[in-house]
Amino acid sequence: MKQQNLYVASRLKKFSEKVFLQMGCPEEEARLAADVLISADLRGVDSHGVARLSGYIRLWEAGRVNPNPDIRVVHESPSTAVIDGDNGLGLVVGPIAMKKAIEKAKQAGTGWIAVRNSNHFGIAGYHAMLALAHDMIGIGMTNASPLVAPTFSTERLLGTNPIAVAVPANNEPPLVADFATTTVANGKLEILQRKGKPAPEGWVQNSKGHKSTNPEELKNGGALLPLGGDREHGSHKGYCLGSIVDVFTAVLSGANYGPWVPPFVSFLPLADDMPGKGIGHFFGAMRIDAFRPAEEFKLNMDQWIQRFREASIVDGQEKVLIPGDPERDMEDKRNKTGIPLLKPVEQDLLKLADKFGLTL
Amino acid sequence: MKQQNLYVASRLKKFSEKVFLQMGCPEEEARLAADVLISADLRGVDSHGVARLSGYIRLWEAGRVNPNPDIRVVHESPSTAVIDGDNGLGLVVGPIAMKKAIEKAKQAGTGWIAVRNSNHFGIAGYHAMLALAHDMIGIGMTNASPLVAPTFSTERLLGTNPIAVAVPANNEPPLVADFATTTVANGKLEILQRKGKPAPEGWVQNSKGHKSTNPEELKNGGALLPLGGDREHGSHKGYCLGSIVDVFTAVLSGANYGPWVPPFVSFLPLADDMPGKGIGHFFGAMRIDAFRPAEEFKLNMDQWIQRFREASIVDGQEKVLIPGDPERDMEDKRNKTGIPLLKPVEQDLLKLADKFGLTL
Repeated sequence: MKQQNLYVASRLKKFSEKVFLQMGCPEEEARLAADVLISADLRGVDSHGVARLSGYIRLWEAGRVNPNPDIRVVHESPSTAVIDGDNGLGLVVGPIAMKKAIEKAKQAGTGWIAVRNSNHFGIAGYHAMLALAHDMIGIGMTNASPLVAPTFSTERLLGTNPIAVAVPANNEPPLVADFATTTVANGKLEILQRKGKPAPEGWVQNSKGHKSTNPEELKNGGALLPLGGDREHGSHKGYCLGSIVDVFTAVLSGANYGPWVPPFVSFLPLADDMPGKGIGHFFGAMRIDAFRPAEEFKLNMDQWIQRFREASIVDGQEKVLIPGDPERDMEDKRNKTGIPLLKPVEQDLLKLADKFGLTL
Repeated sequence: MKQQNLYVASRLKKFSEKVFLQMGCPEEEARLAADVLISADLRGVDSHGVARLSGYIRLWEAGRVNPNPDIRVVHESPSTAVIDGDNGLGLVVGPIAMKKAIEKAKQAGTGWIAVRNSNHFGIAGYHAMLALAHDMIGIGMTNASPLVAPTFSTERLLGTNPIAVAVPANNEPPLVADFATTTVANGKLEILQRKGKPAPEGWVQNSKGHKSTNPEELKNGGALLPLGGDREHGSHKGYCLGSIVDVFTAVLSGANYGPWVPPFVSFLPLADDMPGKGIGHFFGAMRIDAFRPAEEFKLNMDQWIQRFREASIVDGQEKVLIPGDPERDMEDKRNKTGIPLLKPVEQDLLKLADKFGLTL
């Protein structure tokens, strides 16, 4: 295993904040964006943390991100709103929209916000978890660069379109599900590429839509596969999930959908016939006591969680995990020991430091 | 292929209605229950149609279903309500709760109804689709008899917990996703059992949690697997989905969850420490124009659907399907040619006819 340098979270957060300031973000928004970004590194979703910082900068340099957006509600009802992100960082637009969902829920019982004209929002779980402190269930979704082929197709028409749901409990930690609607997210393939190892069947297909174990297949016109992998194993269900996320995030909001979603990487061109604005998100907040007393609910969640945690396990496995356990364990660990950075990521940050006259 | 007799849908509907009347259902509710039931047969979900009629009767005879329930709202906010189904047929409680969601959405933009103290509600898609005529997105979920093992476990702690989402379009038919959160629903295994064929890997595990291709595995203490099949192929995501459905349907409403969900079959005992009442459902209705003008949205849905339908296909496949296509095609066909009944199902209905002095 390669040696990796460890960085204290607060140091990476401060550095990212300064980079966002250099980009022209207002102070509070730079701090918010850095908080969302580093939460990914803390929770072990390394592909969505500081590893992406230089990507955000390249988008900004290409004029594809507005660092000082006028984020505004363009339509609303008692329990809904559409927010136009004015092409801002999704890392900023996301939490602002989620706060609006929470406000709506305080009044109407639930709040549902569709967002257009935004950009990559980091990890979906961060946004969903903002609801927990209010005794609400939080939901976050986004569409993303088209990398996924619908069942039976050779074309990349959907993103990895993640869904996050955060549910409060009483003594137990919250249940936090946060997952791409594909068999695996792209980050898992990148790990195999670095190791030079093949991918299991069911993760990718080649440009003809045939089974492949080549983790580089996306570079050759291949595609990620919807959760399920193939028709016999339910890939049409993963395709349904990805489609629902695309509709909720983009068709409801007036963002781009399907193959028209703007790519995260700045070197790929935008489609010239885009039907909407930017990428789309969808957020929900449901006040528990709009259904039943929050204390009762949370005690039942404790029982649910404890029962699943105590379930008999398959030989050789350690325990049944509750959604959110692995990320929380990682966060505890990295808060103590620091965040390990791969050499290329560290180099990337050092280049940014150099560019902006900062210290990493 | 065995010869199957064909029945006109209206005949099966009338017959089912009469059986529900014999059970003691009020006239309007008997008609509603029959409509939900036969919609499953029409849409090709044979496992949820008249094949279940004798099962509902056995539950009623065992005193586990109340044919004349007082279905009532027990808690509400502008956009939410909890409905107690008074142990009625889910086939009746479901549409009534969905109508409440639609009413709420008319006022508040969205409506979200959690239901406790209910029973099996037929196909989730029926309920979700009720929203379409109102230019709303409809959502339906239910928990179900525990048959599914969480990733790494040997225990059956979740049901097949389906999710349905129906989205209106303009000239195109609606997008209707309706799927169990397992690799396959139990009905697919029953087909293999009848044919004496093995199941593909990733559908079931044996009582020790090892891979199995025996479609009878559930009778030996085995379990259905969450969508994904195993950890390497994302079964933890299917487990997350099943868990979210369990929480939304049962923990939010005060129904039973996890291993405590009452089994559909009347010969299995109820748990003696049930934490809630009956099984749980969750319904949602989102008014499109609470987000943006419905016409705009529906034109974009047309474009979405057309683009996916036109996608290049893998050699040997016919076309890319839009969620809801196969069920709608089947409905068109069976409305013309009739509904084929397997011999055992036909025998079952003839026995019911005999029992209640009816003609099939």
